[in-house]
Amino acid sequence: MLNQTLDKILPLDRSFEGEIRAHLDSLTKPPGSLGYLEKLAVRYCLITGTSRPRLGRKMLFCFAADHGVVAEGVSAYPQEVTAQMVANMLAGGAAINVLARHSGVDVKVVDIGVAEPIGDVPGLLTRRVRAGTANIATGPAMSVEEARRAVEIGIELAQIAAAEGATLIGTGDMGIGNTTASSAILAALLPCDPKSVTGRGTGIDDSGLVRKVAIVERAVEANRHLLSSPLATLAALGGLEIAGICGLILGAASLRVPVIVDGFISSAAALVACRMCPQVGEYLFFSHLSAEIGHAVFFSCLDTRPILDLGMRLGEGTGAALAFTVIEAAIRIYNEMATFESAGISKKDG
Amino acid sequence: MLNQTLDKILPLDRSFEGEIRAHLDSLTKPPGSLGYLEKLAVRYCLITGTSRPRLGRKMLFCFAADHGVVAEGVSAYPQEVTAQMVANMLAGGAAINVLARHSGVDVKVVDIGVAEPIGDVPGLLTRRVRAGTANIATGPAMSVEEARRAVEIGIELAQIAAAEGATLIGTGDMGIGNTTASSAILAALLPCDPKSVTGRGTGIDDSGLVRKVAIVERAVEANRHLLSSPLATLAALGGLEIAGICGLILGAASLRVPVIVDGFISSAAALVACRMCPQVGEYLFFSHLSAEIGHAVFFSCLDTRPILDLGMRLGEGTGAALAFTVIEAAIRIYNEMATFESAGISKKDG
Repeated sequence: MLNQTLDKILPLDRSFEGEIRAHLDSLTKPPGSLGYLEKLAVRYCLITGTSRPRLGRKMLFCFAADHGVVAEGVSAYPQEVTAQMVANMLAGGAAINVLARHSGVDVKVVDIGVAEPIGDVPGLLTRRVRAGTANIATGPAMSVEEARRAVEIGIELAQIAAAEGATLIGTGDMGIGNTTASSAILAALLPCDPKSVTGRGTGIDDSGLVRKVAIVERAVEANRHLLSSPLATLAALGGLEIAGICGLILGAASLRVPVIVDGFISSAAALVACRMCPQVGEYLFFSHLSAEIGHAVFFSCLDTRPILDLGMRLGEGTGAALAFTVIEAAIRIYNEMATFESAGISKKDG
Repeated sequence: MLNQTLDKILPLDRSFEGEIRAHLDSLTKPPGSLGYLEKLAVRYCLITGTSRPRLGRKMLFCFAADHGVVAEGVSAYPQEVTAQMVANMLAGGAAINVLARHSGVDVKVVDIGVAEPIGDVPGLLTRRVRAGTANIATGPAMSVEEARRAVEIGIELAQIAAAEGATLIGTGDMGIGNTTASSAILAALLPCDPKSVTGRGTGIDDSGLVRKVAIVERAVEANRHLLSSPLATLAALGGLEIAGICGLILGAASLRVPVIVDGFISSAAALVACRMCPQVGEYLFFSHLSAEIGHAVFFSCLDTRPILDLGMRLGEGTGAALAFTVIEAAIRIYNEMATFESAGISKKDG
């Protein structure tokens, strides 16, 4: 299923890009004066394959999982918080719930590998691959087969979302310890010095940061012999939620559904997806620049920019939730503005 | 009325800032992890004088006026476009209408000095001070008394808006030629080299830009003997819409209603307001960084940052309209998130 999905992800058809741009230039504004908003509209049109874009349901998937590496003391919060925050999300009290309500986005919470089973809570999508990962400081997070299953869960959820009418999908994550895994993935795949992409996560202190950098270095070293492919790297260093997000991205791209990538964790997942299939990048919007230091390094390696820069570092999909409103604004500009002709307005001189 | 308004603008009462921050830190997220969103929430609370913020009506005033300096060929569009765009706004087809609908903001269009009277169109607020300004390249734009009247119109509209339940007010502008006036105001008040704050406006070419820089230099020189106060500078170099926005800002601040400043033109108006009364700055949110080059110079002189950076340069209030959704998101975070206690979530280690 993963390979079939990868085969279906095609480069964007740009044959009607001129038509899209001509429409934008016919609207009652100086050409290009809405800046990046216009680029977002063009991109949305190209991904969805139409010069008459339509925004259907907006959906965001927040994947939750635990990380064995928390045993190394890399997080400011205890592991039980993952499950507690999942319950908070299902009760509607987390930041992602508030921001998604504000943006009119449906949030789906997925248990793809929380340490303790959460049980049968209404609204929870239970897709447990295993009860959290193993400690990446001493060996692989999971087997390649487990990583593949987690990716395929993401693909399947993208397919369900598209079938339910989603035309724009956001990513989100919940998992104590997952900045450590994400830093390790970036260090391995970009590649780069672990120190340059390892930050304070939920807010560790200076000595905690020193310890965390050492753990990321150890994780990359301990697993180096396993990093033979993007999927193998994901299995060795990843989290189950990172694998799920990777799959969601691949599944959406294969169906020409644009994806809004949240912050640092989701970007690590996007990087794995892009390494599996480079043209995936064309299907992505990057919602915001996280305050987590590795995120700027990530963008410096990519030919793209984030939509927002608000110093956020919460995850859950909170940056993506905000970015939905900006992309929706861009689509509405494209669809709802008057043209120079319809409004009887004089054009540019000369 | 202007002086009474200035007297009523007080420094923010920060006595309950600790209470506001304690509430934010009680919410189910790592402290500070929502970054600038948290700062926006704090600021909104402080301005409105409460630790229980409420968002009422959202309103945006777009002031339209013409500029005698267009005779110098400083704009890519003919002067008649000002009135045509006002009609477009009243018909709901302009970018500001689309973005304001998207953000749930009421748009009020004010003719404060368009060259040709627009007539009795439903929805238009007619507050004409004069039929456009005189050419600032050869003398003052208007008299000090006219500038005062235009400012007082803005103050009065802020008072009406507050009485009608607005708790957050955005600014906007429409006026062919108004980047030239705004550049001249910035050059005179910051002060700085006119060249550093003069850009392409609606999209003039290289030779047009050379001409425009020369005109801004001439405007500042021709009026230098008149630049004895912020109001006198506004009268000499300003536009009527810039004066109206300046008044709107002052009126709102005097009533403790926060203002979202749009882009380059509105920032020139905000600068005049801040020079009249320095504590005004505490009541302002700056919506976005315009692509107009002078806007970055403006921010480099201020102790603040814009909320968005989307390369927009349209004016009308389009940046402010988008920023409403971000500030509203911040207020909703403050009001709607669960606390660690209410959600039964473990706190940070140690």
